[in-house]
Amino acid sequence: MKRSRPVTNSTAEKKPQTSETPSMKELPIGLKATGERKEFDSMGTVMVPADRYWGAQTQRSLKHFSIGNDKMPKEVYHAYGYVKKAAALVNAKAGRLEQWRADAIIRAADETIAGALDDDYPLYVWQTGSGTQSNMNVNEVLSNRAIQLLGGELGTQTPVHPNDHVNMGQSSNDTFPTAMHIATVLELDEVLLPQAEKFAIAIEAKSDEWMDVVKTGRTHLQDAVPLTVGQEWSGYATQVRDAIAAVRASMGGLYKLAAGGTAVGTGLNSPKGFSIEIAEAIADLTHKPFITAPNKFAAQGSLDAMVATMATLRGLAVSLMKIANDMRWLASGPRCGLGELLLPQNEPGSSIMPGKVNPTQCEAMVMVCIQVIGEDNAVAFAGSQGNFELNAMRPIIINNVLHSARILGDMCEKMRTYSIEGTTLNRERIDASVNESLMLVTALSPVIGYDNAAHIAEAANADGSTLKEAALKSGKVDEATFDRVVDPGKLVGEGVGGA
Amino acid sequence: MKRSRPVTNSTAEKKPQTSETPSMKELPIGLKATGERKEFDSMGTVMVPADRYWGAQTQRSLKHFSIGNDKMPKEVYHAYGYVKKAAALVNAKAGRLEQWRADAIIRAADETIAGALDDDYPLYVWQTGSGTQSNMNVNEVLSNRAIQLLGGELGTQTPVHPNDHVNMGQSSNDTFPTAMHIATVLELDEVLLPQAEKFAIAIEAKSDEWMDVVKTGRTHLQDAVPLTVGQEWSGYATQVRDAIAAVRASMGGLYKLAAGGTAVGTGLNSPKGFSIEIAEAIADLTHKPFITAPNKFAAQGSLDAMVATMATLRGLAVSLMKIANDMRWLASGPRCGLGELLLPQNEPGSSIMPGKVNPTQCEAMVMVCIQVIGEDNAVAFAGSQGNFELNAMRPIIINNVLHSARILGDMCEKMRTYSIEGTTLNRERIDASVNESLMLVTALSPVIGYDNAAHIAEAANADGSTLKEAALKSGKVDEATFDRVVDPGKLVGEGVGGA
Amino acid sequence: MKRSRPVTNSTAEKKPQTSETPSMKELPIGLKATGERKEFDSMGTVMVPADRYWGAQTQRSLKHFSIGNDKMPKEVYHAYGYVKKAAALVNAKAGRLEQWRADAIIRAADETIAGALDDDYPLYVWQTGSGTQSNMNVNEVLSNRAIQLLGGELGTQTPVHPNDHVNMGQSSNDTFPTAMHIATVLELDEVLLPQAEKFAIAIEAKSDEWMDVVKTGRTHLQDAVPLTVGQEWSGYATQVRDAIAAVRASMGGLYKLAAGGTAVGTGLNSPKGFSIEIAEAIADLTHKPFITAPNKFAAQGSLDAMVATMATLRGLAVSLMKIANDMRWLASGPRCGLGELLLPQNEPGSSIMPGKVNPTQCEAMVMVCIQVIGEDNAVAFAGSQGNFELNAMRPIIINNVLHSARILGDMCEKMRTYSIEGTTLNRERIDASVNESLMLVTALSPVIGYDNAAHIAEAANADGSTLKEAALKSGKVDEATFDRVVDPGKLVGEGVGGA
Amino acid sequence: MKRSRPVTNSTAEKKPQTSETPSMKELPIGLKATGERKEFDSMGTVMVPADRYWGAQTQRSLKHFSIGNDKMPKEVYHAYGYVKKAAALVNAKAGRLEQWRADAIIRAADETIAGALDDDYPLYVWQTGSGTQSNMNVNEVLSNRAIQLLGGELGTQTPVHPNDHVNMGQSSNDTFPTAMHIATVLELDEVLLPQAEKFAIAIEAKSDEWMDVVKTGRTHLQDAVPLTVGQEWSGYATQVRDAIAAVRASMGGLYKLAAGGTAVGTGLNSPKGFSIEIAEAIADLTHKPFITAPNKFAAQGSLDAMVATMATLRGLAVSLMKIANDMRWLASGPRCGLGELLLPQNEPGSSIMPGKVNPTQCEAMVMVCIQVIGEDNAVAFAGSQGNFELNAMRPIIINNVLHSARILGDMCEKMRTYSIEGTTLNRERIDASVNESLMLVTALSPVIGYDNAAHIAEAANADGSTLKEAALKSGKVDEATFDRVVDPGKLVGEGVGGA
Repeated sequence: MKRSRPVTNSTAEKKPQTSETPSMKELPIGLKATGERKEFDSMGTVMVPADRYWGAQTQRSLKHFSIGNDKMPKEVYHAYGYVKKAAALVNAKAGRLEQWRADAIIRAADETIAGALDDDYPLYVWQTGSGTQSNMNVNEVLSNRAIQLLGGELGTQTPVHPNDHVNMGQSSNDTFPTAMHIATVLELDEVLLPQAEKFAIAIEAKSDEWMDVVKTGRTHLQDAVPLTVGQEWSGYATQVRDAIAAVRASMGGLYKLAAGGTAVGTGLNSPKGFSIEIAEAIADLTHKPFITAPNKFAAQGSLDAMVATMATLRGLAVSLMKIANDMRWLASGPRCGLGELLLPQNEPGSSIMPGKVNPTQCEAMVMVCIQVIGEDNAVAFAGSQGNFELNAMRPIIINNVLHSARILGDMCEKMRTYSIEGTTLNRERIDASVNESLMLVTALSPVIGYDNAAHIAEAANADGSTLKEAALKSGKVDEATFDRVVDPGKLVGEGVGGA
Repeated sequence: MKRSRPVTNSTAEKKPQTSETPSMKELPIGLKATGERKEFDSMGTVMVPADRYWGAQTQRSLKHFSIGNDKMPKEVYHAYGYVKKAAALVNAKAGRLEQWRADAIIRAADETIAGALDDDYPLYVWQTGSGTQSNMNVNEVLSNRAIQLLGGELGTQTPVHPNDHVNMGQSSNDTFPTAMHIATVLELDEVLLPQAEKFAIAIEAKSDEWMDVVKTGRTHLQDAVPLTVGQEWSGYATQVRDAIAAVRASMGGLYKLAAGGTAVGTGLNSPKGFSIEIAEAIADLTHKPFITAPNKFAAQGSLDAMVATMATLRGLAVSLMKIANDMRWLASGPRCGLGELLLPQNEPGSSIMPGKVNPTQCEAMVMVCIQVIGEDNAVAFAGSQGNFELNAMRPIIINNVLHSARILGDMCEKMRTYSIEGTTLNRERIDASVNESLMLVTALSPVIGYDNAAHIAEAANADGSTLKEAALKSGKVDEATFDRVVDPGKLVGEGVGGA
Repeated sequence: MKRSRPVTNSTAEKKPQTSETPSMKELPIGLKATGERKEFDSMGTVMVPADRYWGAQTQRSLKHFSIGNDKMPKEVYHAYGYVKKAAALVNAKAGRLEQWRADAIIRAADETIAGALDDDYPLYVWQTGSGTQSNMNVNEVLSNRAIQLLGGELGTQTPVHPNDHVNMGQSSNDTFPTAMHIATVLELDEVLLPQAEKFAIAIEAKSDEWMDVVKTGRTHLQDAVPLTVGQEWSGYATQVRDAIAAVRASMGGLYKLAAGGTAVGTGLNSPKGFSIEIAEAIADLTHKPFITAPNKFAAQGSLDAMVATMATLRGLAVSLMKIANDMRWLASGPRCGLGELLLPQNEPGSSIMPGKVNPTQCEAMVMVCIQVIGEDNAVAFAGSQGNFELNAMRPIIINNVLHSARILGDMCEKMRTYSIEGTTLNRERIDASVNESLMLVTALSPVIGYDNAAHIAEAANADGSTLKEAALKSGKVDEATFDRVVDPGKLVGEGVGGA
Repeated sequence: MKRSRPVTNSTAEKKPQTSETPSMKELPIGLKATGERKEFDSMGTVMVPADRYWGAQTQRSLKHFSIGNDKMPKEVYHAYGYVKKAAALVNAKAGRLEQWRADAIIRAADETIAGALDDDYPLYVWQTGSGTQSNMNVNEVLSNRAIQLLGGELGTQTPVHPNDHVNMGQSSNDTFPTAMHIATVLELDEVLLPQAEKFAIAIEAKSDEWMDVVKTGRTHLQDAVPLTVGQEWSGYATQVRDAIAAVRASMGGLYKLAAGGTAVGTGLNSPKGFSIEIAEAIADLTHKPFITAPNKFAAQGSLDAMVATMATLRGLAVSLMKIANDMRWLASGPRCGLGELLLPQNEPGSSIMPGKVNPTQCEAMVMVCIQVIGEDNAVAFAGSQGNFELNAMRPIIINNVLHSARILGDMCEKMRTYSIEGTTLNRERIDASVNESLMLVTALSPVIGYDNAAHIAEAANADGSTLKEAALKSGKVDEATFDRVVDPGKLVGEGVGGA
């Protein structure tokens, strides 16, 4: 797979348009103008609000794509800030971009990263599938903000051009997936994973606290042999821990960046080495182990790494849903349900039934999990719909991934704070149940055989007698043996690893 | 299924708490106060922002459920305005609710319907699964606004109590699904269906315009026998028309309202006849054919009608996706693709490739359709998760249904306006293709048999000759016959109904 | 949309290849030969098993597409039998096909309809997306069986040619979706709908039987106000009835047949009127109200009617899942669960826990419902993937639709027979629960107000007292009023329509 | 999480029922008997076919669960053979199970592993959610086969009892998920992964072969800058390689086995150390790195590892679908499509259009991928539906996972063999396209700026001139520069890593 590289595609050929060196002024963000301002792109001029930094292409997109209320997540623009800053650093270092231009772009990129320009990124999710309109939104805002900082006139694209300077050596086709990866990594590291871990820690604390409380087990919803509440909750904690590990593992794919592939993956108009350098710069800026994707055609023609990460968010949702369901069932009642758990009473539960309290955090969690599963379905579908050198389903994918991460993270925080941490046990109910379960008969099975044991349980069930009564009546076991063998506290084994 | 009705559950037993008749003042919406105000519910007092109408339970929900940025759609509250107004009308007419109380509640409900109180409905989607918190939000806002209008003091729940008066004869369990149905019907009638119909009309106009333009057909993406562009587009129009009809048909289920079932479907605390009367009142107010659901246990224990309507939105998405894909493929090129359609050039398509224009409206439509399919998946899942007398998955379902309807409707408008209406044909490409297709050989099949015809096509394909050259060379057909039979213009049949 | 019809595409141009009239022999199905037989198609010769009727293209498909164990459902071939028979009838009546040829084809088609040739239809689901290979399988089997009946030699395609005679006036593109619609209608009418209706009837019988048994209601899994067991089950029945009605309504789309559109919807090589005539013939043969699809481009370019029907199967699954879940939860225990229902004990439930019995029919139903929801997801996806004049996702769609219908139908039968019909009530548990529920306090709300009522319930919950004790202690209500108002038997209202 | 272990749950308490040592006879598999045989379980006697090894519980399941044609995959039973063999080895070594009993069980287990007893495992997928009926099927068949080998009488459960001996120290609750993991690992290692790798290798060979063939790139389906065919295919290969790596990584979860947790995860009735020993034995027998799951409550209460593996199969499907779609689009034509690829012509494509050939392998692949995505959806749903100590959705999950793995593996083999390996290039079309693409203008952008370049492309598009004509006409570039810069062969960069 060796090809000799052409040397002619260098941006170095282009002469700097000006020899003077404009200096950057310390101007706060904001445009005092009112009314409209004329902006242009290759298709002509467009009027934009005079107090906004964006340019012609952003305005065109607003006109053509105001669909629903779904806006491209701000996190994408923050991530794009890193991309633009990194590109400017690399381009300036190589002498392709004048340092004063780079400095102005970097300043505007930093403001974007900080969220200070959020209001200038108004575009909708449902736009061009490549995300080009959002890339141009960034190019235009950085161009105009840089022009402002350099004392130029907005709308002239001089001395900082959105395509030739801000987008230098880049295409939407390589930078948008790069921004997607960065935004997702940051969202996971800053929102979802910390909250999921706190959630796991809270469960582990309960597991430890309740490790010796013996309760009836349930399989198929039916009474089974006993375990401890702590053992049960250790299972929940393990599920969450494993799900977190899977999310983390999936980030290996996200660390590979498409930047440097430009239009179709070949890197046209981007200088040799740019891929590696921009990935290093992004890694430096974000303190995350980003590297350049080894194959740019896969990195731009597919969004497989995003699909894989989304699958792990779904995996977490699958685990959390089981936990939330268990908790609300175990808390059902207070008098006509299982009633083993007492959840915190956060708010009145009914507009008509006075005094009713419901497991609302668990319900919200279940809904969040279902939403994530549905969004995962959309992401997989979209992930399969790439064609040739581009998967043009980027906006739908990044929107669903970031949304799922966000609601999962927030929900973990709320459910931990307002439900798990304050949950207590109804020991009376737990103790009563464990002794009632006919499945304690299982302990007799190694002593008297499965069939004899089964007949004892069936007899007790049929006439409502206790297990002991039925056992002794059967003549298959004496009282001393029964008392020695059928002791719930002894049947729960040791630790969490089984026999 | 007959049971004699108890007479004791009447609200008439409750004495009016006051004999005087407060008069309603003409006060504009708004609270001048700053800081916080004390509100209470059955669990105690809560501080709320002094300039908001909401009460204790809304505030509790805000604290416990600020998850993501997903807010309960405003359309739900507008619909709830109809429910509360209808309930007040029915209760007042029956003498259970004093007219002056009813009048104040109705005034506040009208303001809610009009959207004038939208800012007082701040709750999130991810909350209690019954929607009780949003119902209480409405009860609290209407209570406080009515108190204001009647000269009372906010926070006292006097003289208009959120539960006893605004929620009289109601439960969240029956009114929330009622509001869901109303909101969905209105969204479909006012947003989605008009836009989907305009979309169909625009396609039909193109179909008519191009009914005689003969083009090559394509099956399996491979060249096939000819049809006309108008015939092709008539298929698109039929798909959309059929999908619209399915959405409409599904509304039959939405017209059935749960109101009157109260807490579990039995109608406890709601007077006899309330179900029918409130449905009639809602029908009057909305001018939609709402009726009372014949079985309240199904109406509250399930959300099957919502699931069924969502399935028809998905059906529309399935149809629209095929159309959008066809359009973008037929417009592919301009020089290295199929190139039969020329879509309007709305915006520059690339940040790096100058002059590139992309089928962005089609791409956005494809993404919207995938999103709807994903949301439908979530709705079906949630629809299956009811338990006993309640499906506690209401917020996720109404949010996805309204969202899907909205983005489909908006997208139909945008794609029609900015892509379909301005699409033209590249007659040169179309004419060239139709004559090149080897599948014109099919017309010879009835004359010389399938096998002979196949060998002619294979020969032409193998040596690159034209079909006519290969046919004459085969000796199976003479030139006169060939020219008479293999005439694309004659092979497209008549109309759209096939043979 | 008017076009004048060309007159030259008539099959009448083709001369009959023989003037003699072969007579049909009364030969049983079966080929005595061993080893292989030479068959051919337009690409050349292929060896096939000498004891099978199929020809070259079937054999090619077997070689190229033996993927998994998923075979094209036999119901598709049975349905195709009707298509081929109807085509032969129409072609013979019009004089395009000699009566003796038609008779032999019809005889073989009848054998196919009856399932007598099932072993000669061996192809896999995962094949060409148009279903052409299965159509050719039918054409080849009918050709060879007709040749056998007419005393010809297998492998010669004489005197009955698979394409020129059996497939006369047809394409896979119009006949395969026609067979899909027929197969689905028959499956629904013969398997799913009868079983779903019996399921509904069984539930209705239980609802009637238990209409006066008062039980505690549950919302959010928490204790709520009472209803009767019969009311609860009336909700289940209504869900199933509504779901059945939706399935039936969707069949309106299935009755519209693509036959007569031939290759791309124009009806090329099919004579004028063929669409209407073949639909009438199929309606006559099947006794179902099939008609010709008014737009053949939609009928062949999409599979929207199949997607819509699948959505109703999913709708039924959503309803059934709720019922199955309710039943297994209500039967949970026997001692540590809700324990209100006693399901039939069909088999031992555990290999280790003697005497354990589980709600296995309900579990199987839940799994079947989830499978149907997943298959619906695949069908919707596939339905969106049509291109131009063909949706080449037919095999996956028909396979999932028929499979879902089959497992839902069979599951309804099993669950009705082995679980619902034998379910009884644990009156002791039901009676105990209803009196324990604190939510009976709701009846006091209209008498003493929501807030007072709430404080009584909270007090009872806090100290474990009965509702009556707490109520009297509160001083808000006297004993006589309490006893009169808080009577579960009076709180359940009347009938199933709510208040 | 420390608990002291009770010593009383030992199977050692149970006295051997016989002191003599039966010897195993060398009897071939098979029962000569006809009619029926009486078998029993704890519920009573059941008649079974006399020529089958299964017992009462298998027969009960056949009666109650004959739903559709979906049988529990044989791979599950083969895997169960390893579980039973390993248990017998461990139990015998510890002296809990007599060696002669163990030997007979092991012999029958080996026959099961080898598939020699497949016909005795007739149960359906839709059964009890724990898989108990399939576990009992294995217990019964091994019991009866062992009894036969030991000269006993079938139906007596002596001297080898299905529960007390074959199932010793086990529960369905721990062994069924163990068998699921084993079966999945074997299916992946033996079927899917080898075929997916051969698929990747075949694509890599094509990528290498075509690394220097320059073609037009396409983004948004529109003409873009050039790349080489080999670069494009390198992207496909990378996608598949990454997907394979993800499948492999997911197997880490599958290697953790639940065996030893018995009924609810506590290991009741299983001796201390059993978990570790049986996992080691299974690892020895299968030569796979199985270990005991560190937390048995998660291992039995969830199926998260299965859900995670299924997600990676879906990931592979997402990648393969893109490749299959690209191939069929690039092969579209032969004359009216893109026409760059020439796929092998495997079979006639149309029953009506002579000489038509279609991209059927690609279509089948697309359908297989959609099916896998749908099945993944079902698996995730089922995975979320666990309750307490058991996820009772095991049969649906194992069936979908194994099915998806199988059809993906088989499809990879077919598509590689019958499509990829024989694909060639239409160099004429490729060469023509690359020179026509106006997007070569991109190379001018660094020289003359984006805006000037855009105007040149627009001018060429508007008047149909070549890019060079338009460029020279614009006056922005001279001919020498144009020829030097706009050279497709130079624009494709070097290698696959971008710039």
